[in-house]
Amino acid sequence: MKNNTPDIKYLFEPRQVAVIGASHDPAKIGSKILRNIVASGYRGRIYPVNPKGGEILGLPAARSLEEVEGELDVVCTCVPAKFVFESVKASAAKHAKFNLVITSGFSEVGNSREEREITSYARERGMRIIGPNIFGMYSAAAALDMTFGPGGIVPGSVAIITQSGALGLAMIGKTAAENIGLSALVSVGNKADIGEAELLEYLVDDPHTLSIMMYIEGVREGAPLVEILKRVSRRKPVVVIKSGRSRRGAAAAASHTGSLAGSDAVFDAVMRQCGVLRAESVQEGFDLCKFLARTKVPAGRNAVIVTNGGGIGVLATDACEKYGVKLLDDAENLKTVFSQVTPDFGSTKNPIDLTGGATSDHYTGALDAALKDGGIDAVIALYCETAVFDAENLGPMIRENFAKYRDAGKPIVFSAFGGASIDATLRKLSTEKVPIFGDVYDAVRTLGGVYRQYDNLARPPLEPEEAQVDIAAVERLVAGARADGRTFLLAHEGRQLMELVGIRPPQSRVARTLEEAVHCANEIGYPVVLKVVSRDILHKSDAGGVALDLENRGEVIDAYQAILRNCRAAVPDARIDGIEVAEMIAKGLELIVGARRDPGFGPIVMFGLGGIYVEVMKDVSFRAVPIDRTEAMSMMKEIRAYPLLLGVRGEERKDMESVIDAIIRLATVIRRCESISDIEVNPIVVYEEGKGSKAVDVRVLLSK
Amino acid sequence: MKNNTPDIKYLFEPRQVAVIGASHDPAKIGSKILRNIVASGYRGRIYPVNPKGGEILGLPAARSLEEVEGELDVVCTCVPAKFVFESVKASAAKHAKFNLVITSGFSEVGNSREEREITSYARERGMRIIGPNIFGMYSAAAALDMTFGPGGIVPGSVAIITQSGALGLAMIGKTAAENIGLSALVSVGNKADIGEAELLEYLVDDPHTLSIMMYIEGVREGAPLVEILKRVSRRKPVVVIKSGRSRRGAAAAASHTGSLAGSDAVFDAVMRQCGVLRAESVQEGFDLCKFLARTKVPAGRNAVIVTNGGGIGVLATDACEKYGVKLLDDAENLKTVFSQVTPDFGSTKNPIDLTGGATSDHYTGALDAALKDGGIDAVIALYCETAVFDAENLGPMIRENFAKYRDAGKPIVFSAFGGASIDATLRKLSTEKVPIFGDVYDAVRTLGGVYRQYDNLARPPLEPEEAQVDIAAVERLVAGARADGRTFLLAHEGRQLMELVGIRPPQSRVARTLEEAVHCANEIGYPVVLKVVSRDILHKSDAGGVALDLENRGEVIDAYQAILRNCRAAVPDARIDGIEVAEMIAKGLELIVGARRDPGFGPIVMFGLGGIYVEVMKDVSFRAVPIDRTEAMSMMKEIRAYPLLLGVRGEERKDMESVIDAIIRLATVIRRCESISDIEVNPIVVYEEGKGSKAVDVRVLLSK
Repeated sequence: MKNNTPDIKYLFEPRQVAVIGASHDPAKIGSKILRNIVASGYRGRIYPVNPKGGEILGLPAARSLEEVEGELDVVCTCVPAKFVFESVKASAAKHAKFNLVITSGFSEVGNSREEREITSYARERGMRIIGPNIFGMYSAAAALDMTFGPGGIVPGSVAIITQSGALGLAMIGKTAAENIGLSALVSVGNKADIGEAELLEYLVDDPHTLSIMMYIEGVREGAPLVEILKRVSRRKPVVVIKSGRSRRGAAAAASHTGSLAGSDAVFDAVMRQCGVLRAESVQEGFDLCKFLARTKVPAGRNAVIVTNGGGIGVLATDACEKYGVKLLDDAENLKTVFSQVTPDFGSTKNPIDLTGGATSDHYTGALDAALKDGGIDAVIALYCETAVFDAENLGPMIRENFAKYRDAGKPIVFSAFGGASIDATLRKLSTEKVPIFGDVYDAVRTLGGVYRQYDNLARPPLEPEEAQVDIAAVERLVAGARADGRTFLLAHEGRQLMELVGIRPPQSRVARTLEEAVHCANEIGYPVVLKVVSRDILHKSDAGGVALDLENRGEVIDAYQAILRNCRAAVPDARIDGIEVAEMIAKGLELIVGARRDPGFGPIVMFGLGGIYVEVMKDVSFRAVPIDRTEAMSMMKEIRAYPLLLGVRGEERKDMESVIDAIIRLATVIRRCESISDIEVNPIVVYEEGKGSKAVDVRVLLSK
Repeated sequence: MKNNTPDIKYLFEPRQVAVIGASHDPAKIGSKILRNIVASGYRGRIYPVNPKGGEILGLPAARSLEEVEGELDVVCTCVPAKFVFESVKASAAKHAKFNLVITSGFSEVGNSREEREITSYARERGMRIIGPNIFGMYSAAAALDMTFGPGGIVPGSVAIITQSGALGLAMIGKTAAENIGLSALVSVGNKADIGEAELLEYLVDDPHTLSIMMYIEGVREGAPLVEILKRVSRRKPVVVIKSGRSRRGAAAAASHTGSLAGSDAVFDAVMRQCGVLRAESVQEGFDLCKFLARTKVPAGRNAVIVTNGGGIGVLATDACEKYGVKLLDDAENLKTVFSQVTPDFGSTKNPIDLTGGATSDHYTGALDAALKDGGIDAVIALYCETAVFDAENLGPMIRENFAKYRDAGKPIVFSAFGGASIDATLRKLSTEKVPIFGDVYDAVRTLGGVYRQYDNLARPPLEPEEAQVDIAAVERLVAGARADGRTFLLAHEGRQLMELVGIRPPQSRVARTLEEAVHCANEIGYPVVLKVVSRDILHKSDAGGVALDLENRGEVIDAYQAILRNCRAAVPDARIDGIEVAEMIAKGLELIVGARRDPGFGPIVMFGLGGIYVEVMKDVSFRAVPIDRTEAMSMMKEIRAYPLLLGVRGEERKDMESVIDAIIRLATVIRRCESISDIEVNPIVVYEEGKGSKAVDVRVLLSK
């Protein structure tokens, strides 16, 4: 398909656009779009298409697309749903490269079949579809507003891709009001064909685009998105707002990995893995994109708070802890830098307290000192309205200092709190693109976002790792289960899988007779555990099918007989395939490792605190595959229970290498064996360093 | 002292005020305060005091306080620090009721001694001090602005108590700009004498005050504050902003209860226990106070989202989950209520989607339907700027609907998102006290606060409970340890304490000889555990001083001898007091219960997930004592691991009653025995319902 697809450049920089459904009626969408195209100053050729012909907005209208002469980079389809396919066919006949299907009435209302047909038809003929169900797009590179929005988009450096139409339309006004210049705005709607990934292929190289915001409701076939996001985020900050956190219920999921994954945690984890900054609200997203489009990422982690009030300084300190902003803590250095510019009854400890008597000159003095000092990487400047401050000088002071910091490549965020003149200053500076916030928490949250991007850039690039696994043998094992009519593996098959994958399960054999059981126990070594093997007995313990801690031959004999007796009583018709004899597991730290095929992102792995804690504590981390050892290690560090791996209360450090190894091996299997949908090892018991871990219980589900 | 103290009413409604340090120089604080007193329209008598006499702001100035005739309810002291004591003495001589010491330079800069002397001097003479180090106070009841702020305070129904001066001063402008009317604003500064608790005694009954906001940096002697907050919060919403979350390090604390308590969790828990709504940022605090002063708490929990855009509806749904707002989920009822007022291609599922074509009439139609329906208790109305909406009608529509809802006692929050005209509408409505938000998260956060207040009011009143404990015996036990020069109890003393308190410890005896050990083991019943008893051996396991799971006489004999041998080898000079023989604890759920004397709030209790998980998971809850069984139960429900108590994965429900009992017993001891500062039972192992729990390990610290 790749060879048959036009260069995405022509979507953002079309040389000609046609509007099918261009209208004389100003209330019609086809009229609004044409008006915006003309008003935005587009320099390419514009072809309105209307069966009535004539002239629309001073442009000669073609009666049909056939009448249009020459090439067509973009066709914009604004006709009613029943005419859309026809319009797409006409566009394809003209070899148009892209078709923006504005019209709604397709998969979003259940009409998925026609949407699929239209898309296939177009793609087979080398034309790509945006939408359907969109409000259009804007591209600063082409000075082209091809939306039915209110117009007045300010060109600039923030690119927006939005899955929501209403929100995207409202963003046009919002960005204009806040003077957030846009390099592009694309409504992707139903994403029948082109999704975020392909649009990012253009934006990654677009020199106008300095930061990218995406509003996403759902991800399909996320692997290409993951791949491009990893690349883009190393060059430009990407902010994503994902709604529907609370939606996808965990109820129906068949495994912990599944149910925990359903809780939005996977999206969150994969975005972090991709270096994408997730924003909760639209305001947070705008704050971050604006700031990151204007300011460089700092050289280091040391931030300083400069304030004229103690209370607001402490609030900012709290916010720094919340948003991961590290405050410089070197009292000596701080004193050297700030003692000349801070009054005696102020404080040179961080926060630097200039006291309520501080004027704009005092602020500039302190900010200059911070700017010059190489040990200070970022500044949070706070201002409380006081009796002494000259309101007229506040704005200019902030503007000038922001410019100085910007030129020096140091981030500075301002927050000012007070009455009407402060509010007016806030609004004015904001429209001048000077980052300033009314609430300290918003200011620090934004700087926290800058530091998330700092961390992204500091990460070593991924070096994907795979384990040596006999995939053919795994597939044979799976085929055996399928031949048996199952979509899951039995316990002993799960253990076989673990052996093939190279994750050490406890020693175990299935005995068919009492003599075999005793023989197995002797081979494995005491103490041992006996468990019934039967597809008809789901709850082995309840059926009396389990005996623990058997220390000698006599106990094994007794237990064997008791298990058979109990199970026959509990489930009279049960087919009993044998009795499993297994080593008794020594006590260790119970963890969970899992892998599954996520509906959005494909193969993912999970790690976390296991045993009975997994469901209640939900202390788990996720990654999209491929990963490497560094990523696997970072999965461990991410969970709250990580100190247990390091050893608390005099316990020794645990064998983390063996767990990293297990994660890498599961990642390999889930990636290479399409026939497996879920593997979950819970618990995997990890012992002290050098003593490895044991995959005690394994559940494996097969793909449908 | 109580009898000697003036009625707090005269602080808020003084009949006369004197300003010592009233000044002709407009730059001086003494001038600004006097100007504000005069300008605010105060109807009582005003006495400026200045050694030069003459006239200030048209008022005759007394040369000294002695010259002033008649009673004095409030004296405001604005003289330099060195003259403050003198001024306080003069005020006391005049039998003034309250003295607002504006002047700084006392305990906040280390001059605590003079502050204490001044306070004692005043209190002994029946005069109370506010401050020092304050900007003054405002009271709408007296139409009195006695601050050195910018003036222009709008009278209204929100009362503010602030420990931060700069922030409080800036709030004057902020509240005026946002048209947040104030009933009172008190700067408490160093809180040398009067703190929040006494001010609340006035505000609780003040008919002008409908909601209360407090900015707190630290709490001393918090018990009276807890007591009054519990009362106030049932009558008026109280919002608190507490800074310094990140400050008080957990490093030096001697127990888990202490270190976890130091992490700001105690403040948070106690405020929740008091029914106080904690706000993180100043903006959140204002949003809540404004809203709660204007709107009634809803009749039930069912909220409905009405929107014209799907995306913003989903964001609001996410926000509802975050902030604890329950969305009505009755599809049938929703359809009945909204099908007439929603277009066919919209949605009557919650969120109610009126679609992008919705006009103000459509909104009013849907909001009227929601208002009329008894099953709907609150509404979140969202608006995205669209092509069809008439901007002029947005403001009036919101204003009218807010008024209708207000009259009907149903809360409604609005959020609007779009361009410049939306922003203008937001600003205009906001100054008209119509609650409207630019970001859906802020709107829902506010409604979430309303529901926190709803939950407060729904809670049954506390019925303090105490357990039967032989306090005298406990004190004797403690005295024994003190006589031994210790500030902690030894393990066997801890167990004795548990027996006295009525929390079942495992059976255990200390044996001095091998024969005794065997005898003890026979009495307790096998299996048993042996542990060395020695104050010189801190890490018993490391010294080889512990033997587990001893199943018979022979094993006890071997282990006894091995322990003595090991310990003598490991710590040659160790004094060995004996060998503890204890029952082997059956496996159960490991919890922690604790009690301590908090520096801010006095006696508190803690409950949580215990064992090795306590430090890493920090899954604990706190309460100030006294509590009752309902509170103890709510402590359990609060932790993430609560489902483990209910029983997960086929496990049975745990004996929660026994844990509640343990909490109540610890609460009793910590409250009644001042000699004990910390008790921590970790783990307390809890078994299945009816099988109780065992206090396996106990640490007890004594008060200093």
